Amino acid sequence: MSNQSINAHRLLSRIRELGTIGRDEEARLIRLAASDTEKLGRDLFKSWLEDAGLEIAVDQIGNIFGIWRPEGTDDQPPLLLGSHIDTVINAGMYDGCYGVLSGLEVIEILKAEDFVPKRPIAVAAFTNEEGVRYAPDMMGSLVYAGGLGVEEALGTIGTDGTVLGEELERIGYAGNEAPGFLKPHAYVELHIEQGPVLEREGVSIGAVENLQGISWQKVTIDGDANHAGTTPMSMRRDAGHAAARVITFLRERAKASNTPTVATVGCVSFEPNAINVIPSRATFTVDLRDPDEGRLKAEEAELATFLNRLAEEEHVDVSVERLARFEPVTFDRSIVAIIEKAAGDRNLSCRRMTSGAGHDAQMVARIAPSAMIFVPSVGGISHNPKEFTADSDLIAGANVLLDVVRKIAANVE
Amino acid sequence: MSNQSINAHRLLSRIRELGTIGRDEEARLIRLAASDTEKLGRDLFKSWLEDAGLEIAVDQIGNIFGIWRPEGTDDQPPLLLGSHIDTVINAGMYDGCYGVLSGLEVIEILKAEDFVPKRPIAVAAFTNEEGVRYAPDMMGSLVYAGGLGVEEALGTIGTDGTVLGEELERIGYAGNEAPGFLKPHAYVELHIEQGPVLEREGVSIGAVENLQGISWQKVTIDGDANHAGTTPMSMRRDAGHAAARVITFLRERAKASNTPTVATVGCVSFEPNAINVIPSRATFTVDLRDPDEGRLKAEEAELATFLNRLAEEEHVDVSVERLARFEPVTFDRSIVAIIEKAAGDRNLSCRRMTSGAGHDAQMVARIAPSAMIFVPSVGGISHNPKEFTADSDLIAGANVLLDVVRKIAANVE
Repeated sequence: MSNQSINAHRLLSRIRELGTIGRDEEARLIRLAASDTEKLGRDLFKSWLEDAGLEIAVDQIGNIFGIWRPEGTDDQPPLLLGSHIDTVINAGMYDGCYGVLSGLEVIEILKAEDFVPKRPIAVAAFTNEEGVRYAPDMMGSLVYAGGLGVEEALGTIGTDGTVLGEELERIGYAGNEAPGFLKPHAYVELHIEQGPVLEREGVSIGAVENLQGISWQKVTIDGDANHAGTTPMSMRRDAGHAAARVITFLRERAKASNTPTVATVGCVSFEPNAINVIPSRATFTVDLRDPDEGRLKAEEAELATFLNRLAEEEHVDVSVERLARFEPVTFDRSIVAIIEKAAGDRNLSCRRMTSGAGHDAQMVARIAPSAMIFVPSVGGISHNPKEFTADSDLIAGANVLLDVVRKIAANVE
Repeated sequence: MSNQSINAHRLLSRIRELGTIGRDEEARLIRLAASDTEKLGRDLFKSWLEDAGLEIAVDQIGNIFGIWRPEGTDDQPPLLLGSHIDTVINAGMYDGCYGVLSGLEVIEILKAEDFVPKRPIAVAAFTNEEGVRYAPDMMGSLVYAGGLGVEEALGTIGTDGTVLGEELERIGYAGNEAPGFLKPHAYVELHIEQGPVLEREGVSIGAVENLQGISWQKVTIDGDANHAGTTPMSMRRDAGHAAARVITFLRERAKASNTPTVATVGCVSFEPNAINVIPSRATFTVDLRDPDEGRLKAEEAELATFLNRLAEEEHVDVSVERLARFEPVTFDRSIVAIIEKAAGDRNLSCRRMTSGAGHDAQMVARIAPSAMIFVPSVGGISHNPKEFTADSDLIAGANVLLDVVRKIAANVE
């Protein structure tokens, strides 16, 4: 196997340049799916695909593809690389972008060295992976894999009242290709870990063999708005207090268990939201994750039981809406083995691991053998400006991706 | 004492007409202080003052006064009646408006029957009693009583980012009179109880002898935004969970105590408020009330102690901002006695009681002998469309006010 490596300077400077796109007046990085700032990020990525001489395609959900089709490979399904370039509010610059730009970097290196693949090699930037503006998250790859109808997805109403399809039209990324037009031979996604494991163990490369199941629910609690000064505590139907009980229940239960279950309440709102009025309504989201489907189901059941008891004890009405539900995913054994081998050949320490976050790879895994490569995240911090991965780790991960691509693209079976 | 009574039809129809002003597309009553809808309510009230032939004055904080100055009374300070006409979000139609319109009704009746008072009689609609848009609440009467500088009050930034002074200018109610230009001889405020006591005991009239102390604080908790899927529960600094612990602490402590202390968290917000991000910041309000200043101080101290412990246990940063603080108020003994006598003379059951809500009367009490008259609120419900008081109770309360005014306005001492 060639010892050729990626162009570290080009990769790192592109990651930093993309990281400057979408800063608000407080310098917070915000590129929400299909927003004006994300359009600027898409435009920049597209210009780099053009510079690399790749064929560019955009599908109906706005996923962007840069495709290298060497002569004689058109009869073969492509090896697909990629991730996403949308971000959360006040994000770091590595989440998603690292995998997309490394995929492009790998293709450029292979093109330049006249590598002769047995199949096309493509890089994808999937739409709305974060799910902050439009639920569910990983929407672009879900639609690409046929798990969600494109019309339904395009009709999604955002937290800001916008419609995804209209926003994609507005920013010029409502493409013509049918979702799944590019059926992949395999998919490999390089990503920062977004967790503390690799850094804590001093390991350079994570060969991701599976991924947690994810359960997103929206809970609405209805009580009675009433005067905060004159209503005795015993006569209250306080929706806000009932919501607080759920938040503490989820946290304490997950913290006390010795399982990898994680539970998070990230969004909350009270109505009428006035200082001197007892909340008549509280709405909040619940994010439950576990690598074991049985345990995840059990946690969902425990929450449902608690909500029923709460409704009785607090005399409130509780309703639950499912926003998203993904079962745990097991990645392709042979690709995971190729990743381990590639890391070893470059004398990089490597461990098999579970992904705690959701990734586009879990969607593409529905239609093609897939796996992921992780690199360390300092402090495990992500979705935060403090998100950081050392240049040496970024370079090492991209080189492992390069070698993995070389190996997979060289085979026809 | 004359048996003349108020014009029930006129009073009730005015309450209902004012209650139609400021309805949104969902028919919710919303007349926030100095808003476009409150301007419409002010205009209607002003037109009724004109119809009644009263002298109209507006002071710099936007308080509206309708003044009846019979000949020969100009050397005497006026007897002041009133309340407020601003509302909370999705309010009932009685809170405040009942007292203002009953004050006007009483003056019209006395004028019509050629009653000869020893002093002017005036009715006031005080600005921003509710405090929903601008804190603190009872702002207009507080400025009127000299407890808050008018410049400072006019500079208040609203929850919607507006400046009160600019909004008063915009709606045409930034008056010229200096606050307190009309120094009252005494102040009587008629109001619905907004609590369950009178209805539960089947009593028609409450002679309010004192009022709870009120403590409003805004608490901000800072933790770390982090990925909801990859951050082990033990490594989290979850500002949202810490806020939920405060809400349950306040509720359970107040509910368990055998004191009249009430504690309410009415407003809350999380940042970044995303489903899959652990909240880095939680902000919420705390409303504590008790008729005993010592107990109120003790509750504030307990909260401070809990917040310190919370900061240590959850590894979060906690900061507290005081939004408003009013000590319990004792009303004027002689006026309370006059109210009891007036109720008895009309064969209405009456009890002395404490006001659980804050009212403009507690501010005016700083500069003149003051007291309040309560009528029953069905179910104790207020700040809610279900707020309701039977016509017979509304009429009875206004007649008691009429007789109390006759008695006080007949004396010069």
